[in-house]
Amino acid sequence: MNNPVSVVIRNLTPTFNEGRAAVKRSIGQDLTVEADIFREGHDIIRASLKWRRLHGQVWNETAMMPLGNDRWRGTFPLLQIGICEYTIEAWGDEFLSWQEEVQKKFDAGLYELTNEALEGAQIIEAGARRASGSPDAEILTKLARRAQTVSAHELRSFCEDPELVALMSYWANRELSTTLHPFRKVRVDPRRASFSAWYEFFPRSAEGKADSGSKFRDCLNRIEDAKAMGFDVIYFPPIHPIGETNRKGRNNSLKCEPGEPGVPYAIGNFRQGKNGGGHRDVAPELGTLEDFEWLVKETRRRHLEIALDFAINCSPDHPYVHEHPEWFFKHPDGSIKYAENPPKKYEDVYPLNFYNKNWKALWEELSDVLLFWCARGVTIFRVDNPHTKPVAFWEWVIAKVQTAYPEAIFLSEAFTRPKMMHELAKIGFTQSYTYFTWRNTKQELTDYFTELTQTEVKDYFRPNLFTNTPDILPEFLQQGGRPAFLIRAVLAATLSTTYGIYSGFELCENIAIPGKEEYLDSEKYQFKARDWNAPKNIKKFLTSLNRIRHENRALQFFETLRFHPIDNDRILFYSKATPCKENILLIVVNLDPFQTQSGYLQVPLKNFGWLENNAYEVEDLLSGEHFFWSGSQNYVSIDPLTRPAHIFRVRRWLGRKKGLDHYA
Amino acid sequence: MNNPVSVVIRNLTPTFNEGRAAVKRSIGQDLTVEADIFREGHDIIRASLKWRRLHGQVWNETAMMPLGNDRWRGTFPLLQIGICEYTIEAWGDEFLSWQEEVQKKFDAGLYELTNEALEGAQIIEAGARRASGSPDAEILTKLARRAQTVSAHELRSFCEDPELVALMSYWANRELSTTLHPFRKVRVDPRRASFSAWYEFFPRSAEGKADSGSKFRDCLNRIEDAKAMGFDVIYFPPIHPIGETNRKGRNNSLKCEPGEPGVPYAIGNFRQGKNGGGHRDVAPELGTLEDFEWLVKETRRRHLEIALDFAINCSPDHPYVHEHPEWFFKHPDGSIKYAENPPKKYEDVYPLNFYNKNWKALWEELSDVLLFWCARGVTIFRVDNPHTKPVAFWEWVIAKVQTAYPEAIFLSEAFTRPKMMHELAKIGFTQSYTYFTWRNTKQELTDYFTELTQTEVKDYFRPNLFTNTPDILPEFLQQGGRPAFLIRAVLAATLSTTYGIYSGFELCENIAIPGKEEYLDSEKYQFKARDWNAPKNIKKFLTSLNRIRHENRALQFFETLRFHPIDNDRILFYSKATPCKENILLIVVNLDPFQTQSGYLQVPLKNFGWLENNAYEVEDLLSGEHFFWSGSQNYVSIDPLTRPAHIFRVRRWLGRKKGLDHYA
Repeated sequence: MNNPVSVVIRNLTPTFNEGRAAVKRSIGQDLTVEADIFREGHDIIRASLKWRRLHGQVWNETAMMPLGNDRWRGTFPLLQIGICEYTIEAWGDEFLSWQEEVQKKFDAGLYELTNEALEGAQIIEAGARRASGSPDAEILTKLARRAQTVSAHELRSFCEDPELVALMSYWANRELSTTLHPFRKVRVDPRRASFSAWYEFFPRSAEGKADSGSKFRDCLNRIEDAKAMGFDVIYFPPIHPIGETNRKGRNNSLKCEPGEPGVPYAIGNFRQGKNGGGHRDVAPELGTLEDFEWLVKETRRRHLEIALDFAINCSPDHPYVHEHPEWFFKHPDGSIKYAENPPKKYEDVYPLNFYNKNWKALWEELSDVLLFWCARGVTIFRVDNPHTKPVAFWEWVIAKVQTAYPEAIFLSEAFTRPKMMHELAKIGFTQSYTYFTWRNTKQELTDYFTELTQTEVKDYFRPNLFTNTPDILPEFLQQGGRPAFLIRAVLAATLSTTYGIYSGFELCENIAIPGKEEYLDSEKYQFKARDWNAPKNIKKFLTSLNRIRHENRALQFFETLRFHPIDNDRILFYSKATPCKENILLIVVNLDPFQTQSGYLQVPLKNFGWLENNAYEVEDLLSGEHFFWSGSQNYVSIDPLTRPAHIFRVRRWLGRKKGLDHYA
Repeated sequence: MNNPVSVVIRNLTPTFNEGRAAVKRSIGQDLTVEADIFREGHDIIRASLKWRRLHGQVWNETAMMPLGNDRWRGTFPLLQIGICEYTIEAWGDEFLSWQEEVQKKFDAGLYELTNEALEGAQIIEAGARRASGSPDAEILTKLARRAQTVSAHELRSFCEDPELVALMSYWANRELSTTLHPFRKVRVDPRRASFSAWYEFFPRSAEGKADSGSKFRDCLNRIEDAKAMGFDVIYFPPIHPIGETNRKGRNNSLKCEPGEPGVPYAIGNFRQGKNGGGHRDVAPELGTLEDFEWLVKETRRRHLEIALDFAINCSPDHPYVHEHPEWFFKHPDGSIKYAENPPKKYEDVYPLNFYNKNWKALWEELSDVLLFWCARGVTIFRVDNPHTKPVAFWEWVIAKVQTAYPEAIFLSEAFTRPKMMHELAKIGFTQSYTYFTWRNTKQELTDYFTELTQTEVKDYFRPNLFTNTPDILPEFLQQGGRPAFLIRAVLAATLSTTYGIYSGFELCENIAIPGKEEYLDSEKYQFKARDWNAPKNIKKFLTSLNRIRHENRALQFFETLRFHPIDNDRILFYSKATPCKENILLIVVNLDPFQTQSGYLQVPLKNFGWLENNAYEVEDLLSGEHFFWSGSQNYVSIDPLTRPAHIFRVRRWLGRKKGLDHYA
């Protein structure tokens, strides 16, 4: 070591995985960093927060401020998508320590300060040398000369001279500074990563025909309908060739009748497609790759994005089976193993062995598949069952894809144990599916979303709240009828900033296989007739929700969610606000799809910086009704059959001037 | 990478400073480690906790056990003083996963298991290859052969064969295991580091003469007296030559009269001693280095240790001033700066500049000083003001000394801001002075000791509770008379496992400079007359406390301290217990030195695993009185003038047999 470490920098936040994983933010957001910073003795410390693009050459920097008890804070803006690295540099500041010494001595009545003046001159001269080549050098040289000749009284004000202080701050002696290692990282995602509404549909079901499938060229109506509802990401289940061997029939039957379309998750058919019939091809029944590229372009023209499903499943007809048999698990007799979860058998899917002797080739191939689709305009991937593949693979492949396409977004569909879900988020997944689907009661929702928004989880885990999926028709939706769909839509759209629905939700489809949470006659296995404008649909309601999300910045911040008291266990009451509180929403949801529920809620006036006697306007953004409230306690009554929630925008009333009400 | 990382290992505890600092334990203790351990898919995971001497060749290992929710725990014993490194190795276990598959399939009624049997044979054969060279190889080869021929029914029991399971567990396939990096460390200290009682005295005051100093050869009486009271570490303030230039007189006077002995902390007099008159010499008025070595040997013969003060202070007469002027701070005119804390001046002390151009030589020299005294039988150092020297210096020098003398103990005298105090403990100090001296009320003591014993602090910070020091005569002792000394002694001796007193405490000396917490006529500056057996001394009481500490293992555990309710704010009620609860103490201290206080306390029967109606014997170890209690609520009344505390040993009463009471 050339210089010993002089400053201790510890307990930096946000941090997790011992500082080795990147914090998540999206473009335009800030990152606020805190740390304990201290050193021996009494020198005055300065600390600088420094950031740059990953492996960049030049640091940006901003001063950190002490909060007391040796805790420091600094904030920097995130203006470029990609990975940004940051660190802290701190040092005992020679000039400020000298200034304080002069102040203290003079103020204590010690006027013999010749040595101090000469010492100051030396410190300033050294500053001038560091500034050499800049016009500041000359100014500092003059100031140093002045320091040599000033009287004690003059020295007292000289040491606080604003020009001197500013220049010595800029040209500080950092020879003995300490820089935090290893550098920390923040991953800056596109805005869509932290604020978006997803709409999932099977391209083959675009037109809702009972006995045949739609093609890519038929999908624009569905996409425009989704756009009209306010969705901005269109997510397709796998679009690749579907295997024929052991193909499943309707309702997951082992027997497949001729003409049945098969499950899109049984990927690969070496007989189809230009690129081998695997993950780089589209199923010919949907059209050609050119058709798909046309659809991507048309969708983008409408300011929506298409997300693809990245499902690492191989049907027995996948080209890998022949080209790379070494990538699969084998029986002792050399035959390839199908997937099993004893006693269940999945004979139409061969799992890949990520640890096979030729694993590097497999990993490279899978990353190439992702890059193939990125090159064709798809940079959003919903990843199927990532928890059944090595975490190390995801860490590697996401970093690789995002190096080439920094805007790429990966949504983790890991419905699994909590620690695995969180780890996948920490190592790179942009968004994550959640347990939301199974959280229904007030206590469950409060506990879960308090954990997601009020703990370190908020810095790495972005919940994408799906109300339903092709695999999950929750019991609450099966039982609760149309009101249940409205309730879950409000919750999904307001508890998090990203959410999604699987098509059919807007039609309140709720027929399950008895005793299961799976759809009866699921379109995973068959063509499906649908009237996309069927009566009693909730498309208008969804449209309102998405409009409210766009018009209210409060719904674009995730971690400002707070739950508040209401004296009824069937009503959930929470608020969302922007950090500066210029947009505040109070959201009240009747969780009971059958009965009207009422109660007294406690508006958290203190959280908004309001007084107990402030009057405020309350506007229900769903109904357009206006109310005038004052005080914290107010009454609500909600009939789920008409509208199961209030989304109140609240504004403090400042008074009436020239016949007009004014609001803060 | 040769193999991809297959298992995720996270959130290891205990941990602090992001895993880079060593946990503290003492010899004979265990270390219990927990971590989140998981991987993709459904394979059965095994995890092994591994440990060895730092940089050792061979790992010891023990199986970790799953606690649920992917959390695992393992414990290993610490049997050797020094640094021990440890890590976790975890893997998906091929054999156990195969075993589970066979069990599940068979139990689900699938009896066609030929492939499974052959696969098992392959797995066992591979185990035999790993065992080659051991007698196990042959047994495994036979078992593999059997696997090839067994029926499905036989396979079901064969896969659970105890010999097979044991051998396949031992010879597990760890080719794809993951090992946690970097390795973690635990510092194993001698027992004295975590359990000892310190007695501090100035050697020149050993005989208590008013006008002249004692010598090393006169110290044995004082040491034997301390031993009789039950102390086991004798701590001397600096014993080195004392500077003459600007020597301070009595009560810190700037004027020193001829014959005044000077402050031992103004170290160095180039006119004295064989080794330059600095930190390697003893003051000639105390005797010779040989006399000191004789005293060390005599003290050790009595099973006590001498601790020296490591004070990096230089008087203007220190040999370094002439030999290494570059090690000091200088005025612009080239003269050396004395210590200042404006407006205070310390003209008898020159501080060292740890960042001078020749800093490496300074650091080496200081480490050589410590090694010099280690070689002379002193391995316990009380370090003066470590927070005014670089943290990096302490980290380096403590590691260096402990590499040569693993038993070395460093006590940090950092009365400073909390984060610096904690950091010094994290980077290597064995024990630390605390804020105990200024914590007097029930709330203050409860809060402080809850933080020290119930948070991660317990894994790195060992509080050595000093009741007083030559610099600190707390107001409580000044005001509260003899009862205050008894109260603080009980608290110090029972709240922590290490504590100390500065001599004079046992005589209840409490005359301060008015308005300050400093001793009047402090022996730091002068000779001091004392009758070491003065009337009203509390030597018997201290002797009882130390005896109780030795006889009750509960007082040798730090983190089992718990506070319990009592309905009087002037009474502190807490318990100490061994982990297995075979020794339980209830300690009740009247914090009011003036008045009798009484109240109802709540015995935490549940904590001991007792029932509400259990009867138990309560023995006051200070008075010898016995009581019989039952239920949790009991009454105490404590007169501080007779005895300000109860130390109850409690034992559950099992019943009477043959005329004798039996206890658990």
